Amino acid sequence: MPKTTFTTVAHAPANLETTVTSRDMSFTLDEPTDLGGTNKGMNPVEALLGALGACKCIVVRSFAAAQGIKLNDVKIECSGVLDPDGFMGKNPEAKIGFSEIHTRFHIDADNTREELVAFLEFVESHCPVQDTLSNPATSSFELA
Amino acid sequence: MPKTTFTTVAHAPANLETTVTSRDMSFTLDEPTDLGGTNKGMNPVEALLGALGACKCIVVRSFAAAQGIKLNDVKIECSGVLDPDGFMGKNPEAKIGFSEIHTRFHIDADNTREELVAFLEFVESHCPVQDTLSNPATSSFELA
Repeated sequence: MPKTTFTTVAHAPANLETTVTSRDMSFTLDEPTDLGGTNKGMNPVEALLGALGACKCIVVRSFAAAQGIKLNDVKIECSGVLDPDGFMGKNPEAKIGFSEIHTRFHIDADNTREELVAFLEFVESHCPVQDTLSNPATSSFELA
Repeated sequence: MPKTTFTTVAHAPANLETTVTSRDMSFTLDEPTDLGGTNKGMNPVEALLGALGACKCIVVRSFAAAQGIKLNDVKIECSGVLDPDGFMGKNPEAKIGFSEIHTRFHIDADNTREELVAFLEFVESHCPVQDTLSNPATSSFELA
């Protein structure tokens, strides 16, 4: 498969509530009321962690059989530490985005712990979202 | 506000279809059928681009008035280039995640183009998801 371009559009027509659309699929992101939103959906940093966990779930499901993992169930918890004082301009020293991201794998499989840990090393190195977070893409922007 | 930990759980109980949940909010991610999924939602790399665009929409909406922008509407298109041959193991030289990410801002505001471009520089440097993509967090994982 050649290099592929993926595109998603975000639209905030009135307030912080934002509809995210890719192909014919959409979901809503927002902020809680204490951050100025109307709490109609999770916020973008939670969605980023969700994209990360889902990407790892899909890598687990896609490669388990080929890697000798007898998988029953997979649940993945991703957490990230962020100092909102950076974003809100209260502390110029604070990092704007996440400073730490941690993934906790809950794997139900008929394998030894050693086999599972070896498989998770494979998953970590083959997850497109994790790679994007660990090895930055070039970023550019323009005003249409 | 002190440093805050955000958490999202991803669960793929049967196939690639994954439910992402944070607080009491959820959405579904999946892969198209040609990538082994059932196409019940956008895929994780599209969701990552959506989280990025939504984060920028929220920064635009949150800071426009304070920065002298008379904002009517904001729509943000984020695109990313990825070579699926990396993920699928067909080309060991291919990057696993995005190699390029581009943001195209559609801003409807009663301001000059120069004022808008200056504002977008501010947005780019104050977006938590963009910062996480440009300045990697530490990443760790564990098997529960």
